[in-house]
This record gives sequence, C-alpha cells and structure tokens, in this order.
Amino acid sequence: MINITVIGLGLIGGSIAKDLKSQLNVKVVGVDASQAHCTMAQKLGLVHQISTLDDGIQDADIILIAVPVDKIESLLPYILDKMKITSVAIDVGSTKEAICKSINSHPKRNRFIAAHPLAGTEFSGPEAALKGLFQGRKNIICEGNLSDKDALATALKLFESLGMVTTLMSADEHDKHLAYVSHLSHVSSFMLGLTVLDIEKDEKQIFDLAGTGFASTVRLAKSNPKTWAAIFGKIKKYLLEAMDSYINHLENFRVKIQNNDIQAIEQLMETSNEIKRILK
Amino acid sequence: MINITVIGLGLIGGSIAKDLKSQLNVKVVGVDASQAHCTMAQKLGLVHQISTLDDGIQDADIILIAVPVDKIESLLPYILDKMKITSVAIDVGSTKEAICKSINSHPKRNRFIAAHPLAGTEFSGPEAALKGLFQGRKNIICEGNLSDKDALATALKLFESLGMVTTLMSADEHDKHLAYVSHLSHVSSFMLGLTVLDIEKDEKQIFDLAGTGFASTVRLAKSNPKTWAAIFGKIKKYLLEAMDSYINHLENFRVKIQNNDIQAIEQLMETSNEIKRILK
Repeated sequence: MINITVIGLGLIGGSIAKDLKSQLNVKVVGVDASQAHCTMAQKLGLVHQISTLDDGIQDADIILIAVPVDKIESLLPYILDKMKITSVAIDVGSTKEAICKSINSHPKRNRFIAAHPLAGTEFSGPEAALKGLFQGRKNIICEGNLSDKDALATALKLFESLGMVTTLMSADEHDKHLAYVSHLSHVSSFMLGLTVLDIEKDEKQIFDLAGTGFASTVRLAKSNPKTWAAIFGKIKKYLLEAMDSYINHLENFRVKIQNNDIQAIEQLMETSNEIKRILK
Repeated sequence: MINITVIGLGLIGGSIAKDLKSQLNVKVVGVDASQAHCTMAQKLGLVHQISTLDDGIQDADIILIAVPVDKIESLLPYILDKMKITSVAIDVGSTKEAICKSINSHPKRNRFIAAHPLAGTEFSGPEAALKGLFQGRKNIICEGNLSDKDALATALKLFESLGMVTTLMSADEHDKHLAYVSHLSHVSSFMLGLTVLDIEKDEKQIFDLAGTGFASTVRLAKSNPKTWAAIFGKIKKYLLEAMDSYINHLENFRVKIQNNDIQAIEQLMETSNEIKRILK
C-alpha cells in the first residue's frame, strides 16, 4: 500500500485525489485549510480520509501539493522539514521558478519534484474535481536534475498513471512559455469579461446576445481569482512582456480599423489564422 | 412549393440552405460568386440546384442574402430592383445599420427584412455548413416597422422553422450591443492568436503547452478574415469604443500586476467572475 497525501482539495488536488483513489493499492489522505473543503471532499468521496497537515505529511510516501502558488512557496520548506527522508514531495502549481528557488538550498531538495500538469477547467473547489481530468493531457517537470532518480521515477510513474505524458524543462523556460501561451489567455479573458460588464450596462443584452463565440472567449473569466492572482504575481516578468505585446497588437489593429484599412485588417487576421495549423 | 434562393453558400448561407432543403415543400436554389463554392454546395447536397444571380432572384419567393456585409450593401439594391414585387429579401449579415441605410429610400424597402441569426462556428465555406446550426439560438430583426406585415411574418416563420426565437430591435441598438458583446470577442481572440504567434517563436511550444484554456480563448482567431474585416469596417464606432475600454482595462490590470497589487488584481477578477451569473 502506498500512502499519498494531497494538500489542497480544489479543482486540481481534488481531481488528482479522485483518480488516485480509484487505483488498486493506494491510500489517499486529504488535507485542506478550509473545513468546508474537507467536508465536501469527504462527501464526494475524493479521499479515503481527511487528516491534519502534520499527520498528513508524516504518514505519506508521496505528498502532492495543490494549493495556490504563493501558498506552495511558504508551505514547501515546512513540508520538506517534516516529511520522511524517503518520501517524495510534488507540487503541481502553474508557476515554477519562484517555487524552485524557495527550497533551492533545502537539505531535502533532492526529494522534491516541481511539476505542472496542464489540465483544468474554469471551475474551482472540491465540487469541480473531475475523474479523468488529466487523461491524455501533458505534464511538465522542471529541474528534474536536482531530484533523486528514484524520486523523479516515482513522479513520472504517478503522472503516467493519471494518463499524462511528461516533458522536462527548466523552470525559467516553463514560466516563459506558460505566460506566453496559457496565462495571457486568462488575462485576455478576464479583461474581456470586465470590459463587457463595464460597457454593456444592460445585462439582459449580454444574456440575449451572447453567442457561442463570446461564451468560449470569456470562459476563463469564470476562473478562481485567488488562484490566478497568485500566478500573475509570480510570473510577472514574462506575463508583462506578453501583455505589452498583446496591447500593442490591439492598438495597431485599432488604428487600422479607425483608418478603414480593410486590407491590413484582413492580413492581420490571416496571420492570426495560422493558429489553426499549429493547434490542429 | 415555395422557392427560396440563398445567395452566398458559406457557413451561414450553407447551413440555412441545408436546414431549409430538409423541409417538405421548399425548393432551395443556391447562388455563389465562387464556382468552387457552387460545386461543393452541390456535392454536399446543400441545395436543390445552383443558379445564376439573375435567375436566382427572378424565380424566388424568398431571397436570403448571406454574403459578407460589405457585399450585402452593394448587392441589395440590385436584388430589390430585379425581384418580384411579392418576394421577400432577407439579409443575415452581422451588422445592420449600414445595410439598412443602403436601401432606405428604395421603392421596395417594404419587401426587405434585416436579420441577424446569432449562430456560427469558427469555420467557413460550404464544407462548414451544419444542419441544426440555428436550433435553439436567437435571431434579431431590425427596423421591422419598415417592412410589410406579410414580409415580416414570412421572415419570422422562416427563422422559427430553423428553430430560432426572434427579437426585434433598432439597427443602431443591434450594432452597439453586438459590437460590445460579440465582435469585441473576435478582436480579442484574433489579437491573442497574433500575439502568441509573435512572441512564442517556438511553434512546438504552442502546440505542446496549449491547454484547453488557450484553445477556447483563441478559437475565434480561426474565423474567416474577409467576413470579419467587412464587419469590423461597418461597426467602427461601437467597436472602437469597446476596444478602447478593453485596452484601458488591460493597461490598468498591467499596472496592478507591475505594482504587485495582488489584492486589486484579485478584486478585478472577482468582478469579472460576475459573467458566470449572467451567462448561466
């Protein structure tokens, strides 16, 4: 029997717990600072049992940390201090460099794995946990060279058991590419929601006129503000770079529309169409 | 038997033709400036027959105009000139004011209906035509008071037969609300695609790291550039207003991230979360 403690029972932690709990020889213990989350996770059967943080750490062979990224940083040294020397601690946060730095010189750094399973929905909390959320999706592990071989092998096997294929990259590369591709999408969608709520005073019109296009573009604006505020705070450098480029493209497009330069507008959209080829 | 001519056999015209063709007592004639579109529409069985523009106009009881909005404006007076006095011409373009103005003083203005069925996908051309695309979606008719009662009734019945519920509003209101809610989404998505292609030089990273979040936010960037260049040109006033507000919100959010004002970032996203309540 392998003992796995999942700290943080929201969308990601809850979904991991749910998948692991269905495996043959695994005991899943859940830990969450919110009593409501603990009660809900138990009610939904996401974990075998709920535990305190300290007990959860001490009894675990594998500790999965699925709390907001700013909390991971403050919690991680504590977890490494308290856990067994043979255990493996794995974080699944959406930013990696600041987290890796926070335990860079910790004596148990070699028992830590910095991971980012690329999956999610716009919903949050234990109720949002989905079985099979990770199936067929990609996982990233950063600075794998700083971890013991057996710890890395354990993490790889765990993510494989969730149906994921893992890619290794540096924490800086991870943060850069994720800011460019994924986190900018969240900013763009959150700001679209804010703009439409701001300029369209008549909520009934939003409801009546929202087509599937608006619904899909604004979907991420439903995401958890705490989770994303923490992420945006941690990947500032690359996110600001991406946002500057996004604002520049919008301003340039705005000028072309203003000037009735239909040909230029069309060309810019043709370039953007290239995304079809890459995503498919 | 009612004779319906659909001019423009792309995503919208093709889907309308496909639905109408499955109805009992309807003959659907297709017209398209592109020979390739005509051939494909016939191959896919979207229409009963292909015709020339003039024959298509003369034989029709109802003429549906589903070409890009700038083309509608230039084509509409010609269609009204040539069609039978008892026929009804219906355009299904995504902007309404400029189109309505273009035939405001036409002697057959009373036989024209300005409509906008709110449905679509990011794909285009006859191959993108879908049966049931309009089922359960909303339709808008503008300036219905300028049309003969029987013409309006015919249009309402036609859209009802596609599974749509119609709302009446002024052309100016339509353009404003659509720019705010739907067209801004397209700009935001097209520019997101352009930005990611611009800053992420490594296409493999886009492919590898694109989660379902990015895919959904950038989906509209796959839309037809010609269709949207024409639309953006026609709803300039309200679209520029919406874009200015969007750029302002992005710039404000950027400053808050730059200043590590996590609380303000979180609050802005909480406000944006309101979109959940309205869309659901």
